[in-house]
Amino acid sequence: MTETIREIDLNADLGEGFGIYACGEDEALLRVVSSANIACGFHAGDPHLMRRTVESCLENGVAIGAHPGLPDRMGFGRREMRVAPREAADWILYQVGALQAFASAAGGAVRHVKLHGALYHMASADPELAAAAALAVRSAGRELLLYGPPDSKLSEAAEEAGLAYVPEGFADRAYTAGGTLAPRSVPGSVLEDEASMLEQALMLAEGNEFAGLDGKPARIAVRTICIHGDTPRAAAKGSRLAEGLRREGWTIRAPRGSR
Amino acid sequence: MTETIREIDLNADLGEGFGIYACGEDEALLRVVSSANIACGFHAGDPHLMRRTVESCLENGVAIGAHPGLPDRMGFGRREMRVAPREAADWILYQVGALQAFASAAGGAVRHVKLHGALYHMASADPELAAAAALAVRSAGRELLLYGPPDSKLSEAAEEAGLAYVPEGFADRAYTAGGTLAPRSVPGSVLEDEASMLEQALMLAEGNEFAGLDGKPARIAVRTICIHGDTPRAAAKGSRLAEGLRREGWTIRAPRGSR
Amino acid sequence: MTETIREIDLNADLGEGFGIYACGEDEALLRVVSSANIACGFHAGDPHLMRRTVESCLENGVAIGAHPGLPDRMGFGRREMRVAPREAADWILYQVGALQAFASAAGGAVRHVKLHGALYHMASADPELAAAAALAVRSAGRELLLYGPPDSKLSEAAEEAGLAYVPEGFADRAYTAGGTLAPRSVPGSVLEDEASMLEQALMLAEGNEFAGLDGKPARIAVRTICIHGDTPRAAAKGSRLAEGLRREGWTIRAPRGSR
Amino acid sequence: MTETIREIDLNADLGEGFGIYACGEDEALLRVVSSANIACGFHAGDPHLMRRTVESCLENGVAIGAHPGLPDRMGFGRREMRVAPREAADWILYQVGALQAFASAAGGAVRHVKLHGALYHMASADPELAAAAALAVRSAGRELLLYGPPDSKLSEAAEEAGLAYVPEGFADRAYTAGGTLAPRSVPGSVLEDEASMLEQALMLAEGNEFAGLDGKPARIAVRTICIHGDTPRAAAKGSRLAEGLRREGWTIRAPRGSR
Repeated sequence: MTETIREIDLNADLGEGFGIYACGEDEALLRVVSSANIACGFHAGDPHLMRRTVESCLENGVAIGAHPGLPDRMGFGRREMRVAPREAADWILYQVGALQAFASAAGGAVRHVKLHGALYHMASADPELAAAAALAVRSAGRELLLYGPPDSKLSEAAEEAGLAYVPEGFADRAYTAGGTLAPRSVPGSVLEDEASMLEQALMLAEGNEFAGLDGKPARIAVRTICIHGDTPRAAAKGSRLAEGLRREGWTIRAPRGSR
Repeated sequence: MTETIREIDLNADLGEGFGIYACGEDEALLRVVSSANIACGFHAGDPHLMRRTVESCLENGVAIGAHPGLPDRMGFGRREMRVAPREAADWILYQVGALQAFASAAGGAVRHVKLHGALYHMASADPELAAAAALAVRSAGRELLLYGPPDSKLSEAAEEAGLAYVPEGFADRAYTAGGTLAPRSVPGSVLEDEASMLEQALMLAEGNEFAGLDGKPARIAVRTICIHGDTPRAAAKGSRLAEGLRREGWTIRAPRGSR
Repeated sequence: MTETIREIDLNADLGEGFGIYACGEDEALLRVVSSANIACGFHAGDPHLMRRTVESCLENGVAIGAHPGLPDRMGFGRREMRVAPREAADWILYQVGALQAFASAAGGAVRHVKLHGALYHMASADPELAAAAALAVRSAGRELLLYGPPDSKLSEAAEEAGLAYVPEGFADRAYTAGGTLAPRSVPGSVLEDEASMLEQALMLAEGNEFAGLDGKPARIAVRTICIHGDTPRAAAKGSRLAEGLRREGWTIRAPRGSR
Repeated sequence: MTETIREIDLNADLGEGFGIYACGEDEALLRVVSSANIACGFHAGDPHLMRRTVESCLENGVAIGAHPGLPDRMGFGRREMRVAPREAADWILYQVGALQAFASAAGGAVRHVKLHGALYHMASADPELAAAAALAVRSAGRELLLYGPPDSKLSEAAEEAGLAYVPEGFADRAYTAGGTLAPRSVPGSVLEDEASMLEQALMLAEGNEFAGLDGKPARIAVRTICIHGDTPRAAAKGSRLAEGLRREGWTIRAPRGSR
């Protein structure tokens, strides 16, 4: 979104280990991103890791977000499950509430919610699930920001619920003209070189028209850009993306909430 | 505790089903007790049931409490596990936070915390675990009441943490002179007839001296009495106990918190 | 199937409790059915219950079957999950193997496999999942019988895999002319009175043409009839169904396997 | 044990990842060890990983063993739990049976069982638990070998049960004179340099007297030596240990079972 203040948020999924299992480059990413989506114990994460990740966010000045997922640890929340909207809402509220306790205990607060994996995709496409998810987030806190894909059922549901919505884009994934992500199976759908990633990040941040993977013009305006933590050298890549954005006059900063 | 206002709390563990599994006589017990300890998804309970139980508490004017347990659903949280105090604290905070979200979403608030099963017993006897548990509860809310056995490591830890403590007694279990529960294996340790239960409840509520199972005098002052939900006809028995207490001039009421 | 020996199997899902949670009327059903589908710890059941249920089957002369489900205990395996066929096969093999150990330890053997809930329905409709499931069962034992819906992707996959298939019908659910179950939402889809149930059971056992719910003729030949354990008074109804079948000259007996 | 054939087994815990989480250097270790202890889904591991690990064992000529643990994935099976012997036995049988299905499906067989973590330690010290564990293993297969600490309750229980027992030692951990492992907290309890590890491995393999950490003589005869997979550069260290043993005339080979 073109604002006179040129601010963009970089977010990453953090705290996605479990028990003895580590996952991702959390410490390095915390020095790159401005907001963190913290796994809440369903698809990944555990209470101990949640506490430590919340504390790291506060030490690094990174905005704390909840990253609720489906209750499928073996599938890392990536498998779609046929779930009633009411139940999905309860799963979301449970996980957000648990993280809020850790944030509050550490002297901070949860600022946003970003759904994880299959739940993110399902709620972006299914209006009933989207509505239930938005209401669950609102019931956890009217001041919470909801991160998600632009122009989706989820953005509509957030608006309907009176919830501030933060449209999210990806610097490392090509879009089609329609503004949706090209599937990973399509050649060219994953951007590898850092120049292309920066170029796309700028396009997304500025909300300018750009050429989709199918050659047709696309326009997507986002307020946050996701750094995929599971890419090799994710933190290093993210760090150079942040530098590039700063060179172009952008400030990396978490979205200001309503409080 | 002898107060000029003769009030006593009756509490029961509720919401201890899971998925399709029901457990206990929740609806009937809600019409008897003044405070409910709601399972939070570790030893029992699930998000859907937590929401419904919270809503039922509000409809029935029953105080909402969190009932965190060990992460051992197969063992119903009754098996001791060797856990570091720091981890146990994180488990407690996670569960209390999750329930707080449901309470808040429904327009209520969590008023107290009562540990479940093996966690209750371990924290009552181990000073380090007790201290960690008390701090976890306090970090979830300074106004929260902690329910537990009188004169235990847990009551000491609550005092140390500046947390209001509500000593709990059992109307259906005999005490020894020392004021501890007689093990279930001891003959006479489980009180079956309702007159004996009422008599003991009055003793506990009044904090008077009474004869322990070993014949020696005991004195235990409690502010809440637990109704075991897993006893046959628990709600009916509890109902008659409540009537008996009222006949003797007691008001059944949840402890007043600091807010 | 019209055989000169008029034998029909009655099967029920058993051992679907978990930890302290009971489920169904296992003991009563064991005196009615000729084969049991035992939950294997994913959607329901636990090792302790599996051992006890296997022992009860042997005491009652009931054929032991594995009843593998999706790893979704909170949803009782009834929610569809998008799972790769290879992974579903591994889930099935794991569960069947675990039950085989209990059966063998008790001096018996697993005779058949019946998929549970959403896995049953998904594998009946999806040819790749059906093929993976059939191969998983075969790799657990070439002599195993696979129970499932007649004329489905699963029956085709079993034939392809060289696995003996036992088509299953329901006495308490109406069929459409096409031979598929009428959805529960359709009026008349659930047969309540025992005369209708017996009539339909005889039709299914004999493989005769009968009128579907939509009025058109249907013909379904089954070798086993499922007694729904979660119906009120399931065992009593099942017992009278068994009596009715015997009066009509049918022997209640588990299918003979290849060994 | 001094045999005319100088054979020693090297074992390692494998397949201890879960879902997306990797753990250890499985592929490299498979080229070093002669027997593998495969996690069975309780403390670690999942059906998919079990199948792949079994297949890798067969490709590398490594003996397949089951490595059952406590149902505590968050604690990696390292936390003691108070469990009834009968229940522990059921947990063991369940896990061994599941692995047997994968081994059999891949054309192999489970040759041994080694308990994991807290279950290993508890069963080594508690005679009732040891007896239950040994009977569970025997009921999974009379030909199975049981790995465990020498001269323990577990070795006694195996003898009582008529089960072949394989005493296990550690090349990287100091022993006290009594023949028990020195706790990790004791200085010098972890052997870091490879010469010391080889020296101790030879002592254990030969069953010769050696100086315990407390200076007093110890004598421990083992038939298998554990390579800790969670040590940094575990496979490289293990490889050099194997070379050293071979140089001294030892053949690295899995214990011969009774079949």
